[in-house]
Amino acid sequence: MIILLKHKVREADQRQLLHYIESQGEIIHKEEKLLVLREDIPEPDILYRYKAVAKVITRQSSCTLVCAGNSKPEIVIRGNTIGHGDLTIIAGPCTIDDTGRLRETAHALSEEGIKFMRGGVQKLRTSPYSYSGAGLKALETFASIAKELELITVSEVISPEWIVPMTEHIDILQVGTRNMYNYPLLKALGKAGRPVILKRAVSATYKEWLLAAEHLAVAGNREIILCERGIRTFETSLRNTPDIAAIPVMKERSCLPIIFDPSHATGDRRFVLPLSYAAVAAGVDGLLLEVEINPQSAPVDGGQTINIEELRRIMRKLPSLIVQ
Amino acid sequence: MIILLKHKVREADQRQLLHYIESQGEIIHKEEKLLVLREDIPEPDILYRYKAVAKVITRQSSCTLVCAGNSKPEIVIRGNTIGHGDLTIIAGPCTIDDTGRLRETAHALSEEGIKFMRGGVQKLRTSPYSYSGAGLKALETFASIAKELELITVSEVISPEWIVPMTEHIDILQVGTRNMYNYPLLKALGKAGRPVILKRAVSATYKEWLLAAEHLAVAGNREIILCERGIRTFETSLRNTPDIAAIPVMKERSCLPIIFDPSHATGDRRFVLPLSYAAVAAGVDGLLLEVEINPQSAPVDGGQTINIEELRRIMRKLPSLIVQ
Amino acid sequence: MIILLKHKVREADQRQLLHYIESQGEIIHKEEKLLVLREDIPEPDILYRYKAVAKVITRQSSCTLVCAGNSKPEIVIRGNTIGHGDLTIIAGPCTIDDTGRLRETAHALSEEGIKFMRGGVQKLRTSPYSYSGAGLKALETFASIAKELELITVSEVISPEWIVPMTEHIDILQVGTRNMYNYPLLKALGKAGRPVILKRAVSATYKEWLLAAEHLAVAGNREIILCERGIRTFETSLRNTPDIAAIPVMKERSCLPIIFDPSHATGDRRFVLPLSYAAVAAGVDGLLLEVEINPQSAPVDGGQTINIEELRRIMRKLPSLIVQ
Amino acid sequence: MIILLKHKVREADQRQLLHYIESQGEIIHKEEKLLVLREDIPEPDILYRYKAVAKVITRQSSCTLVCAGNSKPEIVIRGNTIGHGDLTIIAGPCTIDDTGRLRETAHALSEEGIKFMRGGVQKLRTSPYSYSGAGLKALETFASIAKELELITVSEVISPEWIVPMTEHIDILQVGTRNMYNYPLLKALGKAGRPVILKRAVSATYKEWLLAAEHLAVAGNREIILCERGIRTFETSLRNTPDIAAIPVMKERSCLPIIFDPSHATGDRRFVLPLSYAAVAAGVDGLLLEVEINPQSAPVDGGQTINIEELRRIMRKLPSLIVQ
Repeated sequence: MIILLKHKVREADQRQLLHYIESQGEIIHKEEKLLVLREDIPEPDILYRYKAVAKVITRQSSCTLVCAGNSKPEIVIRGNTIGHGDLTIIAGPCTIDDTGRLRETAHALSEEGIKFMRGGVQKLRTSPYSYSGAGLKALETFASIAKELELITVSEVISPEWIVPMTEHIDILQVGTRNMYNYPLLKALGKAGRPVILKRAVSATYKEWLLAAEHLAVAGNREIILCERGIRTFETSLRNTPDIAAIPVMKERSCLPIIFDPSHATGDRRFVLPLSYAAVAAGVDGLLLEVEINPQSAPVDGGQTINIEELRRIMRKLPSLIVQ
Repeated sequence: MIILLKHKVREADQRQLLHYIESQGEIIHKEEKLLVLREDIPEPDILYRYKAVAKVITRQSSCTLVCAGNSKPEIVIRGNTIGHGDLTIIAGPCTIDDTGRLRETAHALSEEGIKFMRGGVQKLRTSPYSYSGAGLKALETFASIAKELELITVSEVISPEWIVPMTEHIDILQVGTRNMYNYPLLKALGKAGRPVILKRAVSATYKEWLLAAEHLAVAGNREIILCERGIRTFETSLRNTPDIAAIPVMKERSCLPIIFDPSHATGDRRFVLPLSYAAVAAGVDGLLLEVEINPQSAPVDGGQTINIEELRRIMRKLPSLIVQ
Repeated sequence: MIILLKHKVREADQRQLLHYIESQGEIIHKEEKLLVLREDIPEPDILYRYKAVAKVITRQSSCTLVCAGNSKPEIVIRGNTIGHGDLTIIAGPCTIDDTGRLRETAHALSEEGIKFMRGGVQKLRTSPYSYSGAGLKALETFASIAKELELITVSEVISPEWIVPMTEHIDILQVGTRNMYNYPLLKALGKAGRPVILKRAVSATYKEWLLAAEHLAVAGNREIILCERGIRTFETSLRNTPDIAAIPVMKERSCLPIIFDPSHATGDRRFVLPLSYAAVAAGVDGLLLEVEINPQSAPVDGGQTINIEELRRIMRKLPSLIVQ
Repeated sequence: MIILLKHKVREADQRQLLHYIESQGEIIHKEEKLLVLREDIPEPDILYRYKAVAKVITRQSSCTLVCAGNSKPEIVIRGNTIGHGDLTIIAGPCTIDDTGRLRETAHALSEEGIKFMRGGVQKLRTSPYSYSGAGLKALETFASIAKELELITVSEVISPEWIVPMTEHIDILQVGTRNMYNYPLLKALGKAGRPVILKRAVSATYKEWLLAAEHLAVAGNREIILCERGIRTFETSLRNTPDIAAIPVMKERSCLPIIFDPSHATGDRRFVLPLSYAAVAAGVDGLLLEVEINPQSAPVDGGQTINIEELRRIMRKLPSLIVQ
């Protein structure tokens, strides 16, 4: 059981509370505004009678800061808002490896009216022998090309020591599906001062996903964007099974915006378009799309990367699909 | 290995083929236009040199009659076509139990422009103690009310002995999720002379689902409508996980129309609307909706049944969501 | 809500009960000893004050006749008991197709001390083009060979019309994994007068599996043997994922014996041995093994069929693995 | 495509190889003994004609260093060998929080002949409000108590910065299920100089698990012990579904020892015993057991922790369950 204390508490009120708690159970952890008890006490609601208490969280409760009922985070980057009615399109290559192609892709995206550009510089790859990105140099290239075109940048951070270099160059940090349970990374991102896209782990329940967001929020960062990217099921002919229902469910249960990644969810460019349409009709706040000017030559995940013409088709359809 | 013979084959050509096959393997089953061999023969393509051969199906092949490339079945009922561009809305109660409410619901649906009405008269229930439908009497009531209003009827058939009474009263027969693997039932439906809605089993792969359709087609019925109704995953807060990707995948792989049942896929009326929108945007051919005039009093599945007002909201949105 | 009445009830007591129930809710179904109400009444326990009431089953309850606490069914066939401490080994080919090989296999099994022989005569195959068994003729052959050797026979029944011919020749009827939800078949088996092996559906929960058993029990047959045969998960390198935990869980929750089929659970003869050992150490009541004298030539599922030498190795190990 | 070079290569041979490769494809990454190409070259086997080449790994290959065929790692700690026929029992509390109870448990384990003791000092908890361990102080306490009793210590490392303090006090480092995909952590553990227990992620395929082990091996650490701890399926009445088949499959496919954690796999002490027996009969190399002298008061995971008496029962049974 966790007890959150009010921001301003009189000594006497706090002492009175502690006195009661210690008669009821064992405190196993204590911070300035937070007490952790080994077990739920028999009648948790009694605690609200104490002036020092802001919130009581029992084992039954799951999240508190990111749940529905809280105010939606204001995520605004150079005038662009995420999650308040606008549909945010984030597009770009999976991995940055060729400066020439990156620049061409960036220009093409910009011409299509795209404001947010994604690009991976360091990736977690299942095989230690797979290509895992060009690292810091690619980061600088990405940032400088984006700056020229006034694009907002999105890139994945794979471990805590990358947070500082990333925040120098990147506007929105992404936590990949393999890191959703990496709580030390989430804790470190609590102080990053950048909005975080939190991808769902491949078999995470809705509750675990929200609790990962809660880890971020507790650590000090409430600018969280959930990202559905497909789950693992018994069906293997697509890379993953896109869970479109997660979109309205998360909008019901949490205060956070949610975007959808049809590229990783399907792993097949033929299905990126219909699933993008589906997600928008279901109420998603944005799309995270793998796009290149010349997808066939992408070094990683080429089969799921759409080209500019396909992006244009998506962009044309979207406005009519938004359900008010 | 299966060898399908041409419709018109000269005796001599057939004899020549048999002679060759018998030198290569063992025939374990024989019908007029179909031969089954115990094993694939070493070079199957050689068979196409024989004039009698229409198609060779090896163990690697999955379906043949229902695959993409075949002509789409013409399913037309009293002037209403399924699967050729129109969006088919099938609405009605899960279970028929009260004649008065059924009549009121039917009138309300008809006023909304609904042409297809669903209603269960005999249900498979997981618990032997659950209410499983009112049976034959309900069937007659349903048919007579539908006739007055010129509604096309859809109802589930749960075992072969129900096929004859059902075909007397019902226009489209439905195979429920628990019966997708019930091949004796599918075989019997091959001769039913009614279009069949084939629901996906709760953990069926795409291939198994298509092969169940193939069972129907081989048995003589090609008027098959696939129905996605959610799959079982590790997430339990919805009844099932709707697999929206199944819609474009099945349109790519098969020649069959596909509809979607958001009521059973989610089990929660709050999510029926956004998932209906998503399915339509993903290209679905129709929706199968649980609707009642007064959902709270439905004896089965009340939590997922929408009311007429919600149906009206869905109907209003749909036209703009259809992606050409 | 279901109310089961006592076997001997006085008219007056029954009338009194009905009077009360009708004041509380709506009876939607009535049999001699069973009443079904549309909804649970507010205070179900009050019903136990009525003399006519044997048991009240609310929506929360799952099973009643097959749960732990009931007496274990006495399943004894010609002196051989299943589920009371002995380990029952059922062995034989997946499918009966060649009389000569069947006879040789039967003799070999008998020499190894096997008392129960399995053999399929009619199979549900995912593809309509797959070989599905030799039918009634094979049944008679199987029964006659078994009789000579005093073997107890086990075979799968795939639809209700097969029950009568099967019960003439077969000692134990098996319900396959695809038929676990086929309640009309289970109901028909309620009167078959033969013990039934009930295989778990490929993604059935423990509760659904027990409720399928309850369908059988309610229909009049309590000689039920559960059979775990692997579940469907995201891992595809084995045909299924054997759920060994189901063994102790079902022994905890139900009164039924449980056997294990390592052949279908793994689909790979190399893993049949270690999984057989695991199941026995976990407390299983029996094994259902695919065995042939010459597995390589088996027409169906050859890759999972062990030979007599492997069976002998298993049989030698088993006694030391039984944990008291 | 990856090309591993031989340890001793003549300049001229290496130059010749590079010359050929550059004519065939693009090198995207280069280390002293390792070359990464963007794509597989058309005929990989030709490379073996070059003297400098030790091994060629195409996209089809999965692992190389940890696969079957390699020699089994020699993991010996103060005379105790893991994975060469002996059954390794690792027992202890989930989390270390009370020095008194820890000491009592350690003494009790030692008296039972246990040589390996586990204990968590820093845990990843799904909820940010859950108790997550006592940290460094607990580590020192654990190490000092273990030293007195000559116990070998096992503890989980949750992030790279913990590796140094852990290696000072702990003999075997454990990577938890949430960190199996944390490749930066695995890479850091490559130089830790301690054997690593690698738990399977909750929905990892066999291939992903082996590739995580390969990450460790490539980074320089081959003293790897796989640990099966249950997978996530649709069944929720146990915490996880223990995958006993993983034991023989991993022994077939890899050169690594494999242990089993029945405590987390089931989450229920009633099922820890039968699943331990099953794993041993299936050929496991060891068990990782949650044991305390007084399980009811354990602050985390109390429901799955067995007591000393239950441990004693397991220890007594095991010898007869080992199948040669």
